[in-house]
Amino acid sequence: MSHAEPAGGLRFDTVTFLSDYGTTDEFVGVVHSVIRQLAPGVAVVDLTHEIEPYDVRAASLTLARSTQYLCPGVILAVVDPGVGTARRGVAVEVAGGKAVLIGPDNGLLAAAVTMAGGAERAVVLDRPEYHLCAPGPTFDGRDVFAPVAAHLCRGVALEEVGTPIDAASLLPGLMPLSEVDDLGVLRAEVLWIDRYGNVQLNVDPDQILGWPDRIELQLGEARRVTRRADAFAELRAGEIGLLVDSYGLLTLVADRASAAEELGLGAGDAVGLAASDASDASDASDGATPVSLTLRPGPGGVEGP
Amino acid sequence: MSHAEPAGGLRFDTVTFLSDYGTTDEFVGVVHSVIRQLAPGVAVVDLTHEIEPYDVRAASLTLARSTQYLCPGVILAVVDPGVGTARRGVAVEVAGGKAVLIGPDNGLLAAAVTMAGGAERAVVLDRPEYHLCAPGPTFDGRDVFAPVAAHLCRGVALEEVGTPIDAASLLPGLMPLSEVDDLGVLRAEVLWIDRYGNVQLNVDPDQILGWPDRIELQLGEARRVTRRADAFAELRAGEIGLLVDSYGLLTLVADRASAAEELGLGAGDAVGLAASDASDASDASDGATPVSLTLRPGPGGVEGP
Amino acid sequence: MSHAEPAGGLRFDTVTFLSDYGTTDEFVGVVHSVIRQLAPGVAVVDLTHEIEPYDVRAASLTLARSTQYLCPGVILAVVDPGVGTARRGVAVEVAGGKAVLIGPDNGLLAAAVTMAGGAERAVVLDRPEYHLCAPGPTFDGRDVFAPVAAHLCRGVALEEVGTPIDAASLLPGLMPLSEVDDLGVLRAEVLWIDRYGNVQLNVDPDQILGWPDRIELQLGEARRVTRRADAFAELRAGEIGLLVDSYGLLTLVADRASAAEELGLGAGDAVGLAASDASDASDASDGATPVSLTLRPGPGGVEGP
Repeated sequence: MSHAEPAGGLRFDTVTFLSDYGTTDEFVGVVHSVIRQLAPGVAVVDLTHEIEPYDVRAASLTLARSTQYLCPGVILAVVDPGVGTARRGVAVEVAGGKAVLIGPDNGLLAAAVTMAGGAERAVVLDRPEYHLCAPGPTFDGRDVFAPVAAHLCRGVALEEVGTPIDAASLLPGLMPLSEVDDLGVLRAEVLWIDRYGNVQLNVDPDQILGWPDRIELQLGEARRVTRRADAFAELRAGEIGLLVDSYGLLTLVADRASAAEELGLGAGDAVGLAASDASDASDASDGATPVSLTLRPGPGGVEGP
Repeated sequence: MSHAEPAGGLRFDTVTFLSDYGTTDEFVGVVHSVIRQLAPGVAVVDLTHEIEPYDVRAASLTLARSTQYLCPGVILAVVDPGVGTARRGVAVEVAGGKAVLIGPDNGLLAAAVTMAGGAERAVVLDRPEYHLCAPGPTFDGRDVFAPVAAHLCRGVALEEVGTPIDAASLLPGLMPLSEVDDLGVLRAEVLWIDRYGNVQLNVDPDQILGWPDRIELQLGEARRVTRRADAFAELRAGEIGLLVDSYGLLTLVADRASAAEELGLGAGDAVGLAASDASDASDASDGATPVSLTLRPGPGGVEGP
Repeated sequence: MSHAEPAGGLRFDTVTFLSDYGTTDEFVGVVHSVIRQLAPGVAVVDLTHEIEPYDVRAASLTLARSTQYLCPGVILAVVDPGVGTARRGVAVEVAGGKAVLIGPDNGLLAAAVTMAGGAERAVVLDRPEYHLCAPGPTFDGRDVFAPVAAHLCRGVALEEVGTPIDAASLLPGLMPLSEVDDLGVLRAEVLWIDRYGNVQLNVDPDQILGWPDRIELQLGEARRVTRRADAFAELRAGEIGLLVDSYGLLTLVADRASAAEELGLGAGDAVGLAASDASDASDASDGATPVSLTLRPGPGGVEGP
C-alpha cells in the first residue's frame, strides 16, 4: 500500500496498539493520553484490547494475522504477566526500519516479527530517561512502552532508547505445526476462535490439495463429516464447512452459527482431518494425490495469505 | 452543523464505521489500518461494532437513529452474513453528495438512506482494482468496503469504483409501522433495547396526543399501567414510565433499572398501548381526541426528531 | 509532559471522554460525531465507557486515577442518572485554564477537580444557543455536554457557555478515608477492582511503613495472611500479595489470577489490615516504628503517585 511520509517532522505517525487491558478500566485511554502528549501528531490505532488476561499465545497470533495490514510505524503490544520481574522490555526493528515492535520479551512479538521478515535490530528498554516516573511497578504499558513508542515516533534513534541486544536472544514464539501422521490423518491445532465461532486451524489449503470435497473431522473419538465451502451461506443448518478464511488458512465454519460451539472446540485444541469415507471420497484416489505440497515460507501454520 | 472543508485535497475526511465485528478480534483495527494507509488524513469514527452477529435489523435501526448526527463523508456499515455469495456490495450517494453509504445490499443501509433523503446514485462494487487482494472470501470489510471507502475519500469518483445501478433496485429495509386496532389499542413493536434497558417503541409521541397521563401496557395477556414522564428520576422504584427518548420516540423506562428486564421485553416484541382505565383515564375523553395526527414523513416509526 | 500548542486556532485540541454509555449502542460514536462536526481539528480520547450504569462513584475514582496522565483540554464525563431533572450541568476550569471538566454536577467530577488542584472557575450550562436541539431530554451527552466541549475547544469563553457559579457550591465527592482503630487495625475500603481482579485499597504505602512483611487481612470474621510483593510473579499459586500499584496505592493481588474472586471482594467493601502474628511479624517491633507518617496532600486515599 501507498503511505505518505509522516508530516510534522515525525519519523512515524502511527502507533498500532494491542493489549489484554480490556476497556472497562482506563488503561487504554491513559496510554493514548501519554502518547498524545509526548508525540501530538501521532495516531493510535487500537487493534484489540480484549485479549484474555495473560494470554500471550492468543495475542501473538492476533499480531501475526494482522501484521501485513498494519500501518508503518510503531506496533505496541502489551500482554505482560511478568511485569515487575526481570523479564526484558524490548524494541525490535523490522522491514528496513519501516516498523518497530515494542513490548515485553515473552514471545508475544515473535510471530509478528517473523511475518515482517525477521528482527533486524533490537534493544532492551533500559534508559529510564525515556520512561515516566512510575508510582508502582505494574503498568509498564503506561510508564515504559508508551513513552518509548512516542519518542521513537518523534525520531529518537532506536539505540538511544535502549541497549542493543542480539536479535537471536529474543524469546521465540512457539508456533504449532500441522503434519500428516502414519494413518494419513492431518494432525492440526485450533489457532483461533473468532467472534462468530469460526475455528481457524494451522492448516494451509495446499496441505489438502487433491483431497475430496468431503473431509472427516476427528475430535478425540468423535467423527464428523465436513465439506469444503466458499461462503457461509452455502451450508445447510447444522452443517460444518471447511473454508479458506480471510487469512488464507483452513477454518471450520457454520452458517450464522458458531462452529466452535457446535463442535465443542477451543483455542489450542487438537483436530484431525482425514479424506472422508463418504460417497465422493473416491475423488481422493484418482490422480490428484498431493505429490508436491508447496508450503510457503513462514512460521508454521501462520504464514497466512 | 458547520463543518470545514476537508484539508489535504480529500473529498471526505471522515469514515463512520459500524459493524458486527465485535472488538475481541482484530477486525476493526485492521479496517482502520487499511483506511489509514490508503487515505492517511481520514479519521475513522466508530459508531459501534457490538451489533449482534448477523443482526441486520438492529444495525439498520442503529444507523437510522444516528444518521442526522453523523459527519459528512463515508458511512461504512458491515453486517454481512451473505459474504462470499452473489449478494452485492454497493455504494449509495445521498444528500447531494455529502455522504456515501457503503456496505452489503442486504437491507442494512436502507433506513439510513431514507433518513438522509433517499438514494441519489448507486453503484455495485465490481471493480477489483479498488479492492485488496484477498487470501479468502470472508472479510469484505477489509478487502472491498474499506479500500473503496478510502478511495472515495481521496476523491475517486463514485462511477469509478463500481457499475451504476438503479437505486430502486436496492434491497429495501422493512420498517415496522405501529397502528391503532379496532379496539383502540395502539399496536407497536420494540425497536431497540439500549444498554440501560430502555425499550424504544415505533411510536411517535403525536400518536398518543391527548391520551391520559396513565397508559396501559399490554404484553400478551398481561396488563400494566405506565405513566408519562420527562425524566427517569421522576419514577418511583418499580414504576414503568413512558418517555420521549433522545430520538423523539416513545420509550418504556425505569429509574436506574432496566425496563426491558422488568417487562421481559426484547427487540422485535409486540406491545400494545391503551388509554388506561385508571383514575385519571377520564382525561382521555374530554375533548383532546387526536383529530389531527400530524405524522412527519420518514420510514415508519423511525423518522425520529 | 511537554505538549505543543494546539494548531488551527483551537484553544484545546483534545477532549478526553468517559461515560457509562457502553459501546453496544451508538451513543459514544454519536458524541464523537457531534464534537468532530463542531470542532473538526479536535481529537477525542476515550478513557472508558464501560462504567457500570449510574455508578458515579466508580466513574469519579476512574477520573481521579487518570487525571495526572490526561492531555490538557476538555475532560468530558457523563454518568448521569439525574438527566432531565433539575440537576445542573457544569463546566469547571482547573490548573490555570489548562483543563475544563464538563459533566453533571452530581459528584462525578469532584475528585478529579481536587487532583487537578481545585476548581478555579465554574459555570452552569444554561445557554441553549451552545446546545443541540434535542428531540427528547435524556441524552445531554450529545445535546449539551458534547457541543459545549466543542465550543470551548474552538475558543468560546467559559463565561459564554454558562452562568458563573460559586465553585464551592459544586457537589463534593465522598472519598473514603482509611484509619487505624483502637486495636491497631487499619480500616480500609476497596476503591476499585480492575480487569485482572486486583483490589485497590484506599491505603497509601506510608500508612504501613514499618509493618512486617506479612500482613493479616481481615474480611468480616475471616482472616488471611498476605505478604508484600513487588511483582505478581513473585507470588505462589493461591497466595495473596500486597503490592503498591501503578497509582501508588496498596492493592491485593494474585499471580495470573483474580484476588477479588479469591477473596470475594467488590468495590466499596470494608477490609482490615493488621500486622500479622506470623513468624516474621517480629520485624515490626525492631526499630522501624512509623514515627513520622508523611501523608501527602490530596483527597483521602486517592492522592496517588
